Amino acid sequence: MTDLERMGAAAKAASRVLAMADTEAKNRALDAIAQALNRQGDRWLAANREDLEAARAQGMAPALLDRLALTPERVAGVAQGLGQVAALPDPVGVVDRTVARPNGLVIERRRTPLGVVGIIYEARPNVTVDAAALCLKSGNACILRGGREALASNRAAVELMRQAIASVGLPPDCVSLVADPSRESARQLMHLDRYLDVLIPRGGAGLIRAVAQNASVPVIRTGEGVCHVYVDSAADLDMGAAILVNAKCSRPSVCNAAECLLVHQSVAEAFLSRAVPLLDPYAVELRCDPRALALLGDRAVPAREEDWGAEYGGYTLAVRVVDSLKEAVDFVNRYGTGHSECIVTQNREAAEFFLSAVDAAAVYVNASTRFTDGGEFGLGAEIGISTQKLHARGPMGLEELTSYKYLVRGQGQTR
Amino acid sequence: MTDLERMGAAAKAASRVLAMADTEAKNRALDAIAQALNRQGDRWLAANREDLEAARAQGMAPALLDRLALTPERVAGVAQGLGQVAALPDPVGVVDRTVARPNGLVIERRRTPLGVVGIIYEARPNVTVDAAALCLKSGNACILRGGREALASNRAAVELMRQAIASVGLPPDCVSLVADPSRESARQLMHLDRYLDVLIPRGGAGLIRAVAQNASVPVIRTGEGVCHVYVDSAADLDMGAAILVNAKCSRPSVCNAAECLLVHQSVAEAFLSRAVPLLDPYAVELRCDPRALALLGDRAVPAREEDWGAEYGGYTLAVRVVDSLKEAVDFVNRYGTGHSECIVTQNREAAEFFLSAVDAAAVYVNASTRFTDGGEFGLGAEIGISTQKLHARGPMGLEELTSYKYLVRGQGQTR
Repeated sequence: MTDLERMGAAAKAASRVLAMADTEAKNRALDAIAQALNRQGDRWLAANREDLEAARAQGMAPALLDRLALTPERVAGVAQGLGQVAALPDPVGVVDRTVARPNGLVIERRRTPLGVVGIIYEARPNVTVDAAALCLKSGNACILRGGREALASNRAAVELMRQAIASVGLPPDCVSLVADPSRESARQLMHLDRYLDVLIPRGGAGLIRAVAQNASVPVIRTGEGVCHVYVDSAADLDMGAAILVNAKCSRPSVCNAAECLLVHQSVAEAFLSRAVPLLDPYAVELRCDPRALALLGDRAVPAREEDWGAEYGGYTLAVRVVDSLKEAVDFVNRYGTGHSECIVTQNREAAEFFLSAVDAAAVYVNASTRFTDGGEFGLGAEIGISTQKLHARGPMGLEELTSYKYLVRGQGQTR
Repeated sequence: MTDLERMGAAAKAASRVLAMADTEAKNRALDAIAQALNRQGDRWLAANREDLEAARAQGMAPALLDRLALTPERVAGVAQGLGQVAALPDPVGVVDRTVARPNGLVIERRRTPLGVVGIIYEARPNVTVDAAALCLKSGNACILRGGREALASNRAAVELMRQAIASVGLPPDCVSLVADPSRESARQLMHLDRYLDVLIPRGGAGLIRAVAQNASVPVIRTGEGVCHVYVDSAADLDMGAAILVNAKCSRPSVCNAAECLLVHQSVAEAFLSRAVPLLDPYAVELRCDPRALALLGDRAVPAREEDWGAEYGGYTLAVRVVDSLKEAVDFVNRYGTGHSECIVTQNREAAEFFLSAVDAAAVYVNASTRFTDGGEFGLGAEIGISTQKLHARGPMGLEELTSYKYLVRGQGQTR
């Protein structure tokens, strides 16, 4: 048995106990973790300083250093998040369907945890606690495989969580950390079918694709966001401009930010002349098809084929003029990643066609794509935003971390 | 582009049209297929005779020949099945959740098709029509990759279906057949991520494991059934014997048949003395742990380690005496495949513990495992029985062939 197989077996055993734990026991564990963070958060901060020093010594870029850094405020925020997860309704045990069959069998469908959830993620150490908390509340054991650059932080956080979980009488193996965050451990995790029920990669597109391509454990793809804003011929152009600026510029690094503007030819000139000045303060680079380029002149550069479907993650926007709603829909379905897509229009039929025809987790009429988020959708919290159609789609909260089973009660029925 | 990529692109395009089709259009297509089967079923039978002759010439075993064979009655049964699928409620378009957010956004969750479903299966040609019908009704295009031995039958069925689908104005590429049922085409299908939304292998355990291990397309594992019957200390022993005989002998080749009997030591002697004579007419081979062997003597043979967790698919039963309910649950969770598990007991607490603690798609109290089936569960039909926890678990009907998307309607909201 490898170290990871041993960890998997221990997590599976812990998951059997956790699956039977009642809501109060799970909330006590979350509360114990929050208290430990409040009292012993210094340990986590000290470990994080080690990681930060090593990262600085290796010349990590400032934006990445910021993602890696914990502060007393961030630790307090994570502790508060635990309280919020504890306050959410427990999906486990809910019976969402009951059927009495003519032969007398009574069949109930009851929500269960998934079992053991593997999470492969990158730099941010707060994910370690946030993700473990969501797994814990939904009755799942988790195996966390964070980035090498956050190893000391993650070790401290997991040690603290395991102690807190044990202190309320649940198995500490509900939360485990892969000790060696190498490529080899990621590869092993992808094939730990015997113990892992699902694997969720969180991070860049490269990581997610590699996991989806290589894993034999079932994977949920999250967070690949090539989102479009389509300004229809019947759009309120001021509204369109405000939505575009928000979708592109409010936080361009996140997956629900817009990467591409499609604008109907009949309003292209009027819309661009209003919207582009609003993008100027952010110095957004505009990569345009020939028709948009003709309208924008020096303000823009020509788009290349690879700009359609590109996830820039920064202040760059692809722009394309389309001749019809149908062309916009076909373009979105071809180049989007099935994350979040928006139409701006005052025409109800156009809106309903877009809603029906666009194949994405979240389809918007007259609102920014930035709302695709567990909190904004009322799920309370999220472990990621699924861009696949199997299992869960869109923001994944507690319920999306569950499965179900059928309970069948009889009096000796045979078939 | 390979042939299969071209087929995938065509199926994806067809799926966009089918996703927008209303229930009536889909039912008209199902009806047209049923009529074609009733009128031109002879073509399907003639093609099947070719397959049967070739199979006989190659010395196919009688049981396999029977699975491959169509008869006028079987064709009529398939046509009737189409009518049943048409009569089922359409899951697509159903709004199962609506939330109005404080910021004025109204968020609806609407059921959508999955998109393009790939199905890899073996000998039975009726699966070709049954599976295509379920996909069609749930708004999914499908790419079928049947077995080489049924190629002529499958070609005839798919040609007939494509004509019928086109005759009602839907795209014929809603249903496609992989022309060359080689290992290479199966391998290509497993990596057709760009066009396939899900891959469902149907057939033997070897096929299913190979697909789950190798596919990068999301897979639903179906039909691996190592099912146990546990006779508790508080069991009604006659009921237990009747359930065991039904679960083992009524159709031992199917995935919901029992492979292993666990019996509590306090009732082992009494139970075995009642149950074993009822198994005798079927000449069931009993492979026993030492304690059961001591009770059964010459009637049994010793079990080897590989008998625990074996899917015999025939008249063989593993038998083991356990000391407690807990031991039975642990054994089931270790050696079962998460399909169907049964406890026979008159003790309510024991029943509830078993229901909660056993990790399987269907858990039974006092009823045969043979009831795990879409029809028996009231789903109307099934495309398979999922043994994984992601997406769907247990019998998969029309709803389990769908995903959902969030529709968000605003008045210019930004974040």
